[in-house]
Amino acid sequence: MSNSGIGNSIRRNAPVPMAQCGAACALEILSDRWTMLIIREAFYGVMRYEDMRDDIGIPRSVLTQRLKRLTEAEVLERMPYREEGERTRYGYRLTSRGQSLGLTLLALMQWGDEELRDGSSAIALHDKETGARLRVGLVREGTSEIPLSSARITPQN
Amino acid sequence: MSNSGIGNSIRRNAPVPMAQCGAACALEILSDRWTMLIIREAFYGVMRYEDMRDDIGIPRSVLTQRLKRLTEAEVLERMPYREEGERTRYGYRLTSRGQSLGLTLLALMQWGDEELRDGSSAIALHDKETGARLRVGLVREGTSEIPLSSARITPQN
Repeated sequence: MSNSGIGNSIRRNAPVPMAQCGAACALEILSDRWTMLIIREAFYGVMRYEDMRDDIGIPRSVLTQRLKRLTEAEVLERMPYREEGERTRYGYRLTSRGQSLGLTLLALMQWGDEELRDGSSAIALHDKETGARLRVGLVREGTSEIPLSSARITPQN
Repeated sequence: MSNSGIGNSIRRNAPVPMAQCGAACALEILSDRWTMLIIREAFYGVMRYEDMRDDIGIPRSVLTQRLKRLTEAEVLERMPYREEGERTRYGYRLTSRGQSLGLTLLALMQWGDEELRDGSSAIALHDKETGARLRVGLVREGTSEIPLSSARITPQN
């Protein structure tokens, strides 16, 4: 990625002000590591408060506050569920806005695997129909893009 | 994106433990909103401490600490520069590890633009050679992927 029209001089300001930047807006919601880890849980289908807590070791007060914020931002939604012989409880799942964060989460995983874990990945990503292996990359708009809903994520063990 | 072999039951744990998860490892470094905003600055070629501070409104102590951490993690590197008539100073620029975070940053921008800014984007992403408009998406491994270095990012105004 390179900038256009900058030449070799030192750039003094980002060409896009914070208020108009999609990334800066996104980061208002995805404000810390815990928030992305909660989204990771939701992607894997973990929906209960206690299960999230066990998985990521997040303090209660932080988890409560982040879930509230993600729900207000319409990234997560509360959802009733009932296990056999138990009363109805509430858990959290991704909204469609939350689901579309999948690409960012996968890009982050890919970077972590490639740059910090010597290329070893704990998951594999495949096209559900063709079985082809997938990755996150740049694509020409309107062509060759595979929707997230066509991808299957499988733990590799 | 969906999980395999989970059925309709409630998932109690993420299938990938934190220690083996590329995203969790990545988030050890990219631990907060400020960190990603600093990386955004570096992408746009802003390399000076004071310029970053002006752009993103980050407190000095936080900026100093985050720059140190990003340098230790080999995402940024210190680099001497000299402007006409001035002494040599040091700024920061992305290492190759840092540059490969471009995909994550672009995925985040795309999500922010599409989900939080009604689809309006302050930047356009084009293939340097063909001029084709690009976006971040899922691609079949080994095919149709366009390297980040082939992309040109242009502010739209």
